Amino acid sequence: MTTPSDPLPPLDPSDWEAYRALAHRMLDDSLDYLRDVRTRPAWRPMPAEVRHALTDEPLPRTGVGDAQAYDDFVRLVRPFPNGNIHPRFWGWVMGTGTPQAAMADFLSSVMNPNVGGLEQSPVLVERQVVRWCAQLMGFPEGSGGILLSGGTMANVMGLAVARQERAGYDVRAEGHGGAHPRLVVYASTEVHGWLKKACELLGLGNTAFRRVPVRDDFSVDPAAMAAMIAEDRAAGLRPCCIIGTAGTVQTGATDDLDALADLATREGCWFHVDGAFGAMAALAPSLQPQLRGMGRADSLAFDLHKWGYLPFDIAVLLTREDAALVRTFSMQAAYLASETRGLMAQTGIFFADRGIELTRSFKALKAWMQFRAVGTDLLGAHIARNVAQARHLEALVRAEPTLELLAPVPLNIVNFRYAAAGRDDAARDALNRAILIELQERGIAAPSGTTIRGRFAIRVAITNHRSGDDDFAALVAAVVRLGRELSTD
Amino acid sequence: MTTPSDPLPPLDPSDWEAYRALAHRMLDDSLDYLRDVRTRPAWRPMPAEVRHALTDEPLPRTGVGDAQAYDDFVRLVRPFPNGNIHPRFWGWVMGTGTPQAAMADFLSSVMNPNVGGLEQSPVLVERQVVRWCAQLMGFPEGSGGILLSGGTMANVMGLAVARQERAGYDVRAEGHGGAHPRLVVYASTEVHGWLKKACELLGLGNTAFRRVPVRDDFSVDPAAMAAMIAEDRAAGLRPCCIIGTAGTVQTGATDDLDALADLATREGCWFHVDGAFGAMAALAPSLQPQLRGMGRADSLAFDLHKWGYLPFDIAVLLTREDAALVRTFSMQAAYLASETRGLMAQTGIFFADRGIELTRSFKALKAWMQFRAVGTDLLGAHIARNVAQARHLEALVRAEPTLELLAPVPLNIVNFRYAAAGRDDAARDALNRAILIELQERGIAAPSGTTIRGRFAIRVAITNHRSGDDDFAALVAAVVRLGRELSTD
Repeated sequence: MTTPSDPLPPLDPSDWEAYRALAHRMLDDSLDYLRDVRTRPAWRPMPAEVRHALTDEPLPRTGVGDAQAYDDFVRLVRPFPNGNIHPRFWGWVMGTGTPQAAMADFLSSVMNPNVGGLEQSPVLVERQVVRWCAQLMGFPEGSGGILLSGGTMANVMGLAVARQERAGYDVRAEGHGGAHPRLVVYASTEVHGWLKKACELLGLGNTAFRRVPVRDDFSVDPAAMAAMIAEDRAAGLRPCCIIGTAGTVQTGATDDLDALADLATREGCWFHVDGAFGAMAALAPSLQPQLRGMGRADSLAFDLHKWGYLPFDIAVLLTREDAALVRTFSMQAAYLASETRGLMAQTGIFFADRGIELTRSFKALKAWMQFRAVGTDLLGAHIARNVAQARHLEALVRAEPTLELLAPVPLNIVNFRYAAAGRDDAARDALNRAILIELQERGIAAPSGTTIRGRFAIRVAITNHRSGDDDFAALVAAVVRLGRELSTD
Repeated sequence: MTTPSDPLPPLDPSDWEAYRALAHRMLDDSLDYLRDVRTRPAWRPMPAEVRHALTDEPLPRTGVGDAQAYDDFVRLVRPFPNGNIHPRFWGWVMGTGTPQAAMADFLSSVMNPNVGGLEQSPVLVERQVVRWCAQLMGFPEGSGGILLSGGTMANVMGLAVARQERAGYDVRAEGHGGAHPRLVVYASTEVHGWLKKACELLGLGNTAFRRVPVRDDFSVDPAAMAAMIAEDRAAGLRPCCIIGTAGTVQTGATDDLDALADLATREGCWFHVDGAFGAMAALAPSLQPQLRGMGRADSLAFDLHKWGYLPFDIAVLLTREDAALVRTFSMQAAYLASETRGLMAQTGIFFADRGIELTRSFKALKAWMQFRAVGTDLLGAHIARNVAQARHLEALVRAEPTLELLAPVPLNIVNFRYAAAGRDDAARDALNRAILIELQERGIAAPSGTTIRGRFAIRVAITNHRSGDDDFAALVAAVVRLGRELSTD
């Protein structure tokens, strides 16, 4: 049995100066790694020996020291990310990050506060970030919010608030058993997958999610939604929440948020907006008209690690009324009782009462430092530039006869394909899949793929502050070249 | 309207060498900050001007640059954490972190991968960390797991898996409406607050959570649980999940996990263990007997940012069967379709199908590097030393006639108070509250407070690798001194 006085090697560095030297080397390597990212391929596969080492290594019961652990990282891990730090990565919707925000994550982990609550500066920093975000999104004074790990969590928690506020009974106590009318929620067929997961997790059931058809521009049809609500009401169900999307994941379409806000008001429904990336367009004055109505939402979820260009993970849930968060999530426990003085004074804000997490990391710091260092106007200018780049890419595609656009480009997402005249749809799909894989495997660029109205599309989602004009020209040239090359196989 | 070719100040450093110099200064400052943490008070309140600056500053539309943003951080933020990095912080249950793990967080944010899936090394790193954890916890080959933000999330997701696997119908589709029997779950009255939040969030309702009485040692009474299950079954309810706790937050008690595993098997219930901090005792051979039966759980949740000494946030959910996670959370979407080659090859593991988050940060790296650098045996030795320190503190309290122990000390938590002979219970509570606040405000130490069987306790939870023997002697001396001082007011 260990006794308190047994000497043990510390978990802190046993030699601070030796560790300092190593850490400075890590820092220099890291800055070089990001500065020179453009010289590397957009993506590359792992060699078999790397995969092997990362799969089969036994539990390390004894340590190899910090320097060796770092060398292993440099050899096995760092060369093989999914690539969203690269200027020609446009897959799914991911952000890019910056070295400055990575340093902020380091500073945050050094302080290592638990931002669940308590009397401490990090709680005020998060509150300030949330307030700034509310202001940027057109939310009123008195609105509340909390940082979460990503769009899914922020949306799921938004739906939990919607349910609490519009169930019409004590849903926290009773859940969904019993004699209450079944709750239903409404969103377009283009809504992101989070909603299915949310309905399942919250015990509403996937069948409680009404999928409303979209118009030609991939925005939801508000009249169809209104008709479904009337039908459900007639069938004895309780319409609870209307979900609008600012920037769909497939095409970047934004619903008519003003029309949805009107409908929600008329029907007594909660109005939640999923703005995972699209909400950030509010930072660019030229893009604000597309988001008209977003500031009328009862709750709004969006990421800062996508179009806020911050590293993972950081997202925001805003609610029009702070108290709605508290009504949904607050709980009392003896070990959390607050005081009027000392560490438990809670004169800031008790975030643990506004979400389900009690322990919360200091992810707010990177947003606070980035907002201050570069200013939100410059973030907006980069967002506007990404949209301009999407229009530029759209124009390049339209100008190239062997390419074909597969969806409108309202924001920052471009879906296109190699047209392959004379082939049937299945052959075109196969050819474009092959082109996409070659783009990735040759390290040229990393778009992702999707299916738009039954046709496979090469999908370019631009939330990357490192992309330059030439990168899009290079992409178009490569797709044309690969299309020709792979067609003649 | 911005055009693609508009020159914009970059979000990356405009002068890499200038930023490099600043970053090296940040690193040096940070290492000094942690190396010298013992010379600072355990906690200190924020001055009014700091609070003011962190509350009222307007949205920064224009930037002040990286150096100024850092100086603001140094002045306003860094001096005022909640204090869990300090050797005499023992409040609630928080970890301490290390500079090495903070560097790992930096390295992770530099790579900035999305560990939802895809063909990349970080996915394999997380899978390796999960496998190592499974091995440490006595889980079999074929078990699955995922990293989450904390104990609450890991426990909530564990309960979601329990519901999926034991509801007896297609709960993902149907939710909890309809004609199915109401699901109920069982845990002790000492279970952490996550369970109430989980039942509410999952739509089971808080009333679905059966609170089972505890024995004198604060562990659940399995016979009482069995009786409640029989009663509920007779009433037409469906017992779905039994929850055991390894290390309660109040006193560190561990339920008889073997008895609960037997009961769950007999009743066809899922057996989930909340081992938020207590599960980590499995790393210390001397403590393993207390956890007998834990390896029989269907799912187990625990933190690495508590007794794993890593910075926030990182927790683990293990499931005995990997497929149970997939059955609970998997979903298909066109934009996530996988391929056999390229970035979407998914030859690793698709974590987004094993939880609700699609975007996932690379929190695995700090665990991977720490496990390799120091070895899990040394982590276990520090855990055992923390338990020995709790017993040492218990002995100090017992030896001091003015102090009184308020609960058994089975693990790393000590509840005690200044006895204040001749006073009634209300006066004793008030006096001990005052002692606790003075301990914090004078920067001597930061325990937290709680109520044990109606009596206010000064609660010391030791998950701190920086605490030395002298720190506990200093605490006892200070409580005695403050008790005397405040009694004579």
